[in-house]
Amino acid sequence: MTEFSDFKDLAVRLADAARPEILSRFRTGIAIDAKSDASPVTEADRTAERVMRTLINERFPSHGILGEEYGSENIDAEYVWVLDPIDGTNSFVTGKPLFGTLIALCQNGVPIVGLIDAPGVDERWIGVKGQATLHNGQAVTTRRLKALDQAWLYATTPAMFVGENKAAFERLSASVWRTVYGGDCYAYGLLASGHVDLVCEASLGTYDFAALVPVIEGAGGIITDWHGAPLTLQSEGRVLAAGDKSQHQVALKQLKR
Amino acid sequence: MTEFSDFKDLAVRLADAARPEILSRFRTGIAIDAKSDASPVTEADRTAERVMRTLINERFPSHGILGEEYGSENIDAEYVWVLDPIDGTNSFVTGKPLFGTLIALCQNGVPIVGLIDAPGVDERWIGVKGQATLHNGQAVTTRRLKALDQAWLYATTPAMFVGENKAAFERLSASVWRTVYGGDCYAYGLLASGHVDLVCEASLGTYDFAALVPVIEGAGGIITDWHGAPLTLQSEGRVLAAGDKSQHQVALKQLKR
Repeated sequence: MTEFSDFKDLAVRLADAARPEILSRFRTGIAIDAKSDASPVTEADRTAERVMRTLINERFPSHGILGEEYGSENIDAEYVWVLDPIDGTNSFVTGKPLFGTLIALCQNGVPIVGLIDAPGVDERWIGVKGQATLHNGQAVTTRRLKALDQAWLYATTPAMFVGENKAAFERLSASVWRTVYGGDCYAYGLLASGHVDLVCEASLGTYDFAALVPVIEGAGGIITDWHGAPLTLQSEGRVLAAGDKSQHQVALKQLKR
Repeated sequence: MTEFSDFKDLAVRLADAARPEILSRFRTGIAIDAKSDASPVTEADRTAERVMRTLINERFPSHGILGEEYGSENIDAEYVWVLDPIDGTNSFVTGKPLFGTLIALCQNGVPIVGLIDAPGVDERWIGVKGQATLHNGQAVTTRRLKALDQAWLYATTPAMFVGENKAAFERLSASVWRTVYGGDCYAYGLLASGHVDLVCEASLGTYDFAALVPVIEGAGGIITDWHGAPLTLQSEGRVLAAGDKSQHQVALKQLKR
């Protein structure tokens, strides 16, 4: 467990180091193309990832790194860090403060440390395998849900669901109480803290979901792919998170029907 | 102008008084039905509106009031206050801090003072007819937009558009750069501050849009109904706001086509 504590400490240092790089570029200038090379969001993304990579290389030179901006290094290592400096790019470029930094450590492909940092609102969730998830230092738990038709469901945007995924999501959406859009990774933090019942998304990259796993599991919730399988570095990008494990099963059936 | 300054001062006092009533009930308890009588959001809504009504009655007893929770009083007066204690109920009940308090003063039906308060993130926009809009005390301006296909468009949820409105919104959405969901009144603040180009919504109540008018106009933008007519107490609930006046005309054509 000493090791886990060292890993967690580094994850916190990474998030602390990324924050000023990101916040100093928030709400500066106009970024029409979120991914053009010269845009503030691209600069923030890249600088934050470089800073985090340097800290990882210094502390754990044998670890691998998978980053959204600079690709993979030493990816066959037992321990691999997965970094998404700015999740919620569209939020970032439109001045909405709910974007986040996602930091995960995977052991043999399985996420064992996860951190969701939301610097725009000064909130942070930290999850470590086998430990209670912390939100700004306080332990949090997901909430129970009696029935699917009472569920509050989040997704970032309906545009992320195409073809069969769209039909599946619409079935789920029609069977819950309310569907709310516009969450990005922040929605998973709200779920861990017991404010939201379900988050269902598609078209996610490994960077988008690896950090979520320890956060949600450590709060008593569950997060899987749309087949109910655990999320690993090899998973495809369809995700269903639930605060209540039995209602997760019920929701899965709506997606698969 | 002394009068306008008095009106603005009262609007600020109303928002200051509403804040603690709202924040003290944020992220407390589970609210499945956002509008059930016993839910924290209903308590916050009602208590905040009562506090604001008392202050208005004390300071300007001849003014009318139109409130979302307690209806209208003296509605034929020259000056009528329009109050929405919590805009973005779905955000509030799911712990998302971008809900807002909307306060407007209308003179003969025309909004002349507007205030968007976002207590969850400590942000406030104040607009007064003929004056520059302030965001947390700093003057802000909307941004120019060269072409509609470069626009960032916000709407709270696609579910607010039904039938012909849905077809119209989808035409507009297809002709912009990106559509982002999940804004509530906060999206109009982002537009006033120059981070977003368009906000297009339907199914709004008078409470939802009256306060937006002075905020957006005072920042150099424009906000009308879908026919291009100014918003008044009598308007129906379809709204198009733009930072750039000429692109507002282009966007209107997409809605009307």
